Amino acid sequence: MKTVTIRNIKDYVGETVKIKGWVRNYRKASSKLRFIILRDGSGEVQAVAFKPEMGQAKFEKTKQISLESSVEAVGKVSIHPKKEDVYEFQLIDLNIIGQSEDYPIGKKAHGADFLLSNRHLWIRSRKQIAALKIRHTVYFAICEYLNENGFYRFDSPILTPNACEGTTTLFEVPYFDLGSAFLSQSGQLYLEPGITSLGRVYDFGPVFRAEKSKTRKHLTEFWMMDAEAAFVEHEENMQIQQELIRYVIRKVIANNKTELAELKRDIESLQKADNEFKIITYEQAISILQEKGSEIAYGDDFGATQEELLTEDSAVPVFVEKWPKEAKAFYMKRDPENENLVLGADLLAPERFGEIIGGSQREDDYELLKQRMQAENMPIEDYQWYLDVRKYGSVPHSGFGIGLERLVQWMSGIRHIREVIPFPRMINRIYP
Amino acid sequence: MKTVTIRNIKDYVGETVKIKGWVRNYRKASSKLRFIILRDGSGEVQAVAFKPEMGQAKFEKTKQISLESSVEAVGKVSIHPKKEDVYEFQLIDLNIIGQSEDYPIGKKAHGADFLLSNRHLWIRSRKQIAALKIRHTVYFAICEYLNENGFYRFDSPILTPNACEGTTTLFEVPYFDLGSAFLSQSGQLYLEPGITSLGRVYDFGPVFRAEKSKTRKHLTEFWMMDAEAAFVEHEENMQIQQELIRYVIRKVIANNKTELAELKRDIESLQKADNEFKIITYEQAISILQEKGSEIAYGDDFGATQEELLTEDSAVPVFVEKWPKEAKAFYMKRDPENENLVLGADLLAPERFGEIIGGSQREDDYELLKQRMQAENMPIEDYQWYLDVRKYGSVPHSGFGIGLERLVQWMSGIRHIREVIPFPRMINRIYP
Repeated sequence: MKTVTIRNIKDYVGETVKIKGWVRNYRKASSKLRFIILRDGSGEVQAVAFKPEMGQAKFEKTKQISLESSVEAVGKVSIHPKKEDVYEFQLIDLNIIGQSEDYPIGKKAHGADFLLSNRHLWIRSRKQIAALKIRHTVYFAICEYLNENGFYRFDSPILTPNACEGTTTLFEVPYFDLGSAFLSQSGQLYLEPGITSLGRVYDFGPVFRAEKSKTRKHLTEFWMMDAEAAFVEHEENMQIQQELIRYVIRKVIANNKTELAELKRDIESLQKADNEFKIITYEQAISILQEKGSEIAYGDDFGATQEELLTEDSAVPVFVEKWPKEAKAFYMKRDPENENLVLGADLLAPERFGEIIGGSQREDDYELLKQRMQAENMPIEDYQWYLDVRKYGSVPHSGFGIGLERLVQWMSGIRHIREVIPFPRMINRIYP
Repeated sequence: MKTVTIRNIKDYVGETVKIKGWVRNYRKASSKLRFIILRDGSGEVQAVAFKPEMGQAKFEKTKQISLESSVEAVGKVSIHPKKEDVYEFQLIDLNIIGQSEDYPIGKKAHGADFLLSNRHLWIRSRKQIAALKIRHTVYFAICEYLNENGFYRFDSPILTPNACEGTTTLFEVPYFDLGSAFLSQSGQLYLEPGITSLGRVYDFGPVFRAEKSKTRKHLTEFWMMDAEAAFVEHEENMQIQQELIRYVIRKVIANNKTELAELKRDIESLQKADNEFKIITYEQAISILQEKGSEIAYGDDFGATQEELLTEDSAVPVFVEKWPKEAKAFYMKRDPENENLVLGADLLAPERFGEIIGGSQREDDYELLKQRMQAENMPIEDYQWYLDVRKYGSVPHSGFGIGLERLVQWMSGIRHIREVIPFPRMINRIYP
């Protein structure tokens, strides 16, 4: 007899097959009829245990199950009598593989701390499975778009000798006789030499911020995609970002119908976001915010509140470009039309999901970059490799970074970042 | 005028297009004729500068280039007069974007230390580009195979509260008020709860070993794919590994013809490896080694020498299965036919490339696993989440881990691991 995954039972209507999985839930309808929800990672199906069909002995076995028992079930696949595209499993036999006594989740509402301490069990819940499957789609949609557009994967190192952005939020690691290493906060600087080898490159790995922030938007370990492309300037950089994000939206809608429904995600909002993105300048953004009553001043960075105000009237993501140079990193190229601005843009997601991308054209002049690094008291010798990108055949180039979890939050509609990564790490949490 | 990548110029034969890239090399054939090798990450092409065609002024500009200058070149694409599938670029104009003075690599042979200190420039070399492109293919071939076979990406954490294998080779990181965290050596333990959520899962990220080994096979930071599947037992586990590796071989041969040729990789050997793999037991392996004169004793682990002896007569990879329990980790399931053996297998690559996979069926009995952990003095409380996989609906399950760099070494034929990762980290090297 064929063993099949639940996702594939639609191809076996009328046939007798075996499925293996866990008991999500069960209920007694009558003394002769029981319903058991089985899940196996690929999907869920309602198994129908009907005593006259199964016989006394086998029907009795279905009474031994408990929440999250693992089972092997033999049955006939049928079409659900009322629901479209839904199948049922008419049980012939069921055997318990592993019992599960007093499964701790699901009988009542739990607090966040309890769920996080039991994250290894919480991930069995429907919403968590849905979130993790959307994460899978988003990860590979990003890779596919990049791979199809001439980018090569170029893994930047995690153990680095120096800090990319500041030093107060770095995790420090003793490194043999070489002193300290620091866990990478972004692979961007390493991608820049990568373009001189492969033209267009990206990394996509964990990054680390030892930030003492305890919000629904912060993790100490999260996943970041950094992309960098030779001969791409500011405008084209935003164009690539837009195409990529719109590609991700379409992939999620196409691949995760079940998961979006489980999460009650408003798909229409996602579809509407798949249109030409808005571009406003930082200066315009400040005016808009001030008109809306915000007390922000020119030169300030945006907080969550400002990001939400800027996008509340927009169905599509909004680029905020041309920031004052003081507000952004040393490596951004200056706007040729105004030396006080940089050719950088942040992309803000609609529906109050905030920043999902930061990007910019990079400074490609050796002397200008060196001066800026000196002005920031950076140890030039340690960054000579970075400066060398401008010394040996410098080219105009741009790049951007996507925070995977923030993008998954937007796609899935999940407000807390801790639910879109398998094992979240926060300042007060490293278990399990 | 259209700007095209060098890889795509074959589609523009007879047309005038612009390409942007770097000068790989150049030579003067006569006072009227110069050849310039241009590269842009996507490929390389020979540009032909012929004075009567270009005119005096533009021809003079081609004399200003140097090694690794970046340029914009306008020209007409032609078919190489002698070589098949090779194209040339008949220059019309050429402008330097970024000069490159005294490019330090390439004029003479360099030592490993010099090249590693200039890794950011070394990656521009042909062999390094080829290796990194093969790495890209291998990475995504692994993902594709898994995605098509029901596995979900499930990123395991890097910052972990405890050690997966031993503690002497761990990097330790101070973690806020929670004491120390350790950089993950393998995501396997975290994947096991993952199967109870998604059925089949894998991670694919950096792992860290603070090993004081300084060999051509060791990095302190490398990339590992760990896969784990519910309801998969030992034999099927090896079957999945075999299919995956054979899929990778076919993808590399199909996608990286140019790179394999550049590296003078013997493709026939790779093709021959794409056949049914051999399986021998550990006991058989010991006999073979002893017959070959090795002084290995039953119970010993294999070193590089033994791995090479075991595969020297084999065109295909060799599984060595059923190891003595003392030689392997606590979580491996015992062989029901012999309690002293575990249902684990290492996969050894041919052509002296050594171990590329380690895998096993996992112990799924709560009490047996707990006893073994206690016997190894592991802090049970810290691993309760891991034990819980067996407490709530335990299932037979298996998994395996592939070292990305070792697989790329075999595919590319590169003997030193430092050349198959963008920025290698070793005990004496963390720059650049």
